[in-house]
Amino acid sequence: MNSPTFAIIGTGALGGFYGGLLAKAGFEVHFLLRSDAEFVRQQGLKIDSTLGNFHLPSVNVHETAESLPPCDVTIVALKTTQNHLLPQLLPAPTREGGMVLVLQNGLHPETDSAAIVGAGRVLGGVCFLCSNKVGPGHIRHLDYGRIVMGQFAPDHQPQPELSSHTIRVAQALQHAGIDAVPTKDLWMARWKKLMWNIPFNGLSVVLDAQSDALVNTPPSESIAVDLMEEIRFAANAYSREIPSDAVQEMIQHTRAMVPYDSSMRLDFLAGRPLELETIFAQSIRAAANIGRPMHRVEMLYRLLDFLQRSGRTAHA
Amino acid sequence: MNSPTFAIIGTGALGGFYGGLLAKAGFEVHFLLRSDAEFVRQQGLKIDSTLGNFHLPSVNVHETAESLPPCDVTIVALKTTQNHLLPQLLPAPTREGGMVLVLQNGLHPETDSAAIVGAGRVLGGVCFLCSNKVGPGHIRHLDYGRIVMGQFAPDHQPQPELSSHTIRVAQALQHAGIDAVPTKDLWMARWKKLMWNIPFNGLSVVLDAQSDALVNTPPSESIAVDLMEEIRFAANAYSREIPSDAVQEMIQHTRAMVPYDSSMRLDFLAGRPLELETIFAQSIRAAANIGRPMHRVEMLYRLLDFLQRSGRTAHA
Repeated sequence: MNSPTFAIIGTGALGGFYGGLLAKAGFEVHFLLRSDAEFVRQQGLKIDSTLGNFHLPSVNVHETAESLPPCDVTIVALKTTQNHLLPQLLPAPTREGGMVLVLQNGLHPETDSAAIVGAGRVLGGVCFLCSNKVGPGHIRHLDYGRIVMGQFAPDHQPQPELSSHTIRVAQALQHAGIDAVPTKDLWMARWKKLMWNIPFNGLSVVLDAQSDALVNTPPSESIAVDLMEEIRFAANAYSREIPSDAVQEMIQHTRAMVPYDSSMRLDFLAGRPLELETIFAQSIRAAANIGRPMHRVEMLYRLLDFLQRSGRTAHA
Repeated sequence: MNSPTFAIIGTGALGGFYGGLLAKAGFEVHFLLRSDAEFVRQQGLKIDSTLGNFHLPSVNVHETAESLPPCDVTIVALKTTQNHLLPQLLPAPTREGGMVLVLQNGLHPETDSAAIVGAGRVLGGVCFLCSNKVGPGHIRHLDYGRIVMGQFAPDHQPQPELSSHTIRVAQALQHAGIDAVPTKDLWMARWKKLMWNIPFNGLSVVLDAQSDALVNTPPSESIAVDLMEEIRFAANAYSREIPSDAVQEMIQHTRAMVPYDSSMRLDFLAGRPLELETIFAQSIRAAANIGRPMHRVEMLYRLLDFLQRSGRTAHA
């Protein structure tokens, strides 16, 4: 796997950005697209990025998974609300034994991919990326981009060593200029990301607000802190010792961010389903299972569930 | 006090309704009004009620508290968000030693009136009333109307006996056809009412929904039940033994109600301040003080506080 080939399942704000960087670096990349397929086949992919703007005039466009060739690495960049499609999408690019890198949100979004290709072939990546799709074949990368990635383990135990797969895929991403950081403990990274995702995705929908308003208004900041503490407490019960300082660091970090519309808020405003199962329900169950029920997280989940069921797509 | 005289401080959906019934029954009633004063002086008060519609062509209208005569009973029917005005409003009608009947929401809304006239002269009433003001001098009574009323005690202890004041004022109200129920334990009634007010007022604002949607959608019903249990648990710690059946009774009762816009939702939609201090903050502090912190109630309070600060007056 000196020069691995890639399939990108889901060419949106995240898949288009990372896939675009890989293609720009000279890797063979196959993109699965739906609505934008014809546009991208004719016009290519356009990426505005803080790393430098670029345009890929000619990319490998696939409208169906069946036409994807076997690839060394298949990157799953769909929303987890689309995971029911994976049994149709994963077999073609992975049939020669290639790896799957799951770049999705949640506590263990890799489970659905692992059920198809086997856990040993699945890596997970926790992305810290501010990126939006602004038009057909047009991605705007606003900030950050790190991927903390590691071997998926169904029992969520840390790996004794970095797996060779993790190292090789991370090196390929790094070669493309992506800030890929291998980890022996993927689950730790997932819990930490949830400490941000749960309060700032959830509250952004319920309170119809951007990150800056949430973190700079005392009552919502207090809720965010309490939610983070519940998550930290549950993670600690699973021997993921997240120190209490981490909460205030995330608050300060959010204050320093550009005002940001969370992905869940964008989904809500666009009338798309919310990633409630992987971001909320999975972590609520995990916390309850180890005797650290997250009452506030659960209340936020239920508020979101109500709003999603009510079919509303926007507040005032 | 064979035929007591009344002053009504705040002639809205509640004060206009009860004051109107008293005037219709022949009691001398003095109404304090602001914006509607001239209209009501010329056109009178119009009450559409499930008890029968009626019109009072000639009522005693006062535009300033100073013009109110001393009365036997002063009914405080303002929102508690207006309680800062009480030092100007209460002295004139109460200066001959009359009683004050506080028909306001919250855990101890009587405190502000007691600070002005002395606790011994204050009765509190917990109202179960569906009523709206639909135009100048025009009240629409939709359902219910009971007032559970008793002597205010700063230490919130139950009274050994019904006070003579409680009995006399309740009898006058009953004479006017009002379902006034005297109680020795006003605080018990206040805690019970909060079990409904906190979930259904609070969630109606955060989720922009009427009572029927909240009680008939599983995630919001679950939140309501959890909030009620927190409140019940705190009340029990104060020796107010509310049985667990009370929660499901209130849920069933709410299912049977006509779809209703809570007063807090109407305040929010109209851009008026919300009764967060008396309904939420007072009860949150009381629960914390006795070692039964209400985490979910507090989270709901903070969500409401954020929405109020954000200055939004309506969702989509």
